[in-house]
Amino acid sequence: MKTVTVSLQERSYLIWIGAGILPSGLVPFSSILKDWKHAFLLEDANAAWFGDHVANILNQSAVRCSRMTIPSGESSKSIDQLGSIWNTMLDAKTDRKSIVVAVGGGVVGDLAGFAAASFMRGLRFVQVPTTLLAMVDSSVGGKTGINLPKSKNMVGAFWQPHAVVADIIALDTLPKREFISGLAEVLKYGIIMDRQFFSYLENNVEQILNRAPDTISYLVQRCCELKAGVVSKDERETLGLRAILNYGHTFGHAIEACTSYGQYLHGEAISIGMTMAGKLAVERGLWGADEFDRQTRLLSDLRLPISLVQPVATKDLLAAMQSDKKNEHGNLTLILPDSLGHVSPYRDIPIDDVAATIEYNRSKS
Amino acid sequence: MKTVTVSLQERSYLIWIGAGILPSGLVPFSSILKDWKHAFLLEDANAAWFGDHVANILNQSAVRCSRMTIPSGESSKSIDQLGSIWNTMLDAKTDRKSIVVAVGGGVVGDLAGFAAASFMRGLRFVQVPTTLLAMVDSSVGGKTGINLPKSKNMVGAFWQPHAVVADIIALDTLPKREFISGLAEVLKYGIIMDRQFFSYLENNVEQILNRAPDTISYLVQRCCELKAGVVSKDERETLGLRAILNYGHTFGHAIEACTSYGQYLHGEAISIGMTMAGKLAVERGLWGADEFDRQTRLLSDLRLPISLVQPVATKDLLAAMQSDKKNEHGNLTLILPDSLGHVSPYRDIPIDDVAATIEYNRSKS
Repeated sequence: MKTVTVSLQERSYLIWIGAGILPSGLVPFSSILKDWKHAFLLEDANAAWFGDHVANILNQSAVRCSRMTIPSGESSKSIDQLGSIWNTMLDAKTDRKSIVVAVGGGVVGDLAGFAAASFMRGLRFVQVPTTLLAMVDSSVGGKTGINLPKSKNMVGAFWQPHAVVADIIALDTLPKREFISGLAEVLKYGIIMDRQFFSYLENNVEQILNRAPDTISYLVQRCCELKAGVVSKDERETLGLRAILNYGHTFGHAIEACTSYGQYLHGEAISIGMTMAGKLAVERGLWGADEFDRQTRLLSDLRLPISLVQPVATKDLLAAMQSDKKNEHGNLTLILPDSLGHVSPYRDIPIDDVAATIEYNRSKS
Repeated sequence: MKTVTVSLQERSYLIWIGAGILPSGLVPFSSILKDWKHAFLLEDANAAWFGDHVANILNQSAVRCSRMTIPSGESSKSIDQLGSIWNTMLDAKTDRKSIVVAVGGGVVGDLAGFAAASFMRGLRFVQVPTTLLAMVDSSVGGKTGINLPKSKNMVGAFWQPHAVVADIIALDTLPKREFISGLAEVLKYGIIMDRQFFSYLENNVEQILNRAPDTISYLVQRCCELKAGVVSKDERETLGLRAILNYGHTFGHAIEACTSYGQYLHGEAISIGMTMAGKLAVERGLWGADEFDRQTRLLSDLRLPISLVQPVATKDLLAAMQSDKKNEHGNLTLILPDSLGHVSPYRDIPIDDVAATIEYNRSKS
């Protein structure tokens, strides 16, 4: 078992990583839990089997468990679902000594985190990610929230978990397409801040796709280390440092929005988004074409999509990009690579160049 | 014009107090606002006339104003209304450089504060209270939130305003019953922490009821000073210090809940709640009957209700009290006076004594 520390003064916490660490009792829940007597488990419908493991472990610590199951999928991150969670928490006699435990992917983590942040103005919570995407990205860093009908992640809170337990066996039942989608964020860390890690990925494609436990544990650990470093320096995204994590995301979020969050999984949209952002960087003379080609090749090797096959109008994508909340008063900020392992923010990209990149990408599909 | 500072390190802010200070431009909005270019005004339907003043002042500083009106009354503090605010904020192109301005009483302040805390995971906001209750209590301290159908203020955030502007002329159109309701919280500060202020209130009943501007300005200033002192020491209610502000509120919230928030105004319920809590303290031998009588007399002189006239079953009130979020794992904590100007928390009051106090109060109506 490995641990990674997210250093945030009094809000610091540990990420526990390994295969089988939760059901075997290796995670010291009793010391994490202290005087808590009640846990409210929010579970993705697809992760209920792993929720059973969590409930067993908590029951062994004499913690009363309430459980609520959420339908899988982005559409659960709605105002209605959040309201239903709040009411269920109240009915379950959740109070300020309770903990909220998220068992699932990013949807459940974001929902449970915001419910924890807001119920009684703030309860502690624990993330138990059961998807690769959640393990390497969404469960770490304290971003929580829901979608509005017209815009993703528009409402929420910065609310740090009290612990993250990334048990690799939770991925056992993860569908192949979901697993591969998570690899997009893994690759992203290589591009934005770790050239050596990118090479590791290039050299271990087979083990990755076969989900070799040691390989996957290492991927999760390295991504968490990298993300923890960024989050520690810029917890609330006020310094611009954390923005590098959004590489490919302005394009990606727009792709998701313009396909009603139903066509592409998040990682798939980010994969296409990184391909667009990378190409734009090359066209602007910021990034070498050879390194961009390595990105494209690795995305393809990992079975990730690199072009937009759906008929989405360029003007709709551009409009969606401009409404992204990272932008202020209408200016578009893009994170673009300048060398493998390093990215920078750019605020001065002509909108016509962005449009040309989208057109080019579509022409390759 | 007077100012009171709420000291919370980097979250410190000023409360500006005086008659006519906002429309006359005395409040240095341009320095408070800095680089903000857009304000989202959330206004109580009854305070739109004062919202006009706010919009004028902001327009003079070249700030674009979006305005949204909320129906008056506690029922606006709902999930549906909050969702509607979030969507309207998005349509108004609110972003992280925008400010949210609450113009109204506690309902609008709580709603706007939580909307500001959660939209894009946190925007700055300014409180412009237009009721006495909001000026002396709810606009200061950073408690924001909404109600769930079964429980008040159950969801929200600790989110400090960036400034509070308490302009006494905003009270000009406040109905008499609402004004008097606000006096319950004013009197509360005397009981819990300022014996001298309590005497001042006793000696100035006529000026208070006539709303003499200097007298009301002083009341607001003194209440804000007292509350600011408590909030500075225990911002998130974790140390137990802030709990003294809840004197009368466990009873009061239960009274409001059991009458569906429709029978009593908040201050009226708190007035009855303080009468119950005070009587309980006397019966338990904690507080002198003479000081309790002074409390009762001043409440009556200020035209506040001191007994429950609605037929509410004692068992319903007790159940509602036990579900109050101040309690942990079912234990009832009550704030009771031990001398005029001082209260303490008590966790060991037999439920039968609480029931007897409620029965006694009802018998006096």
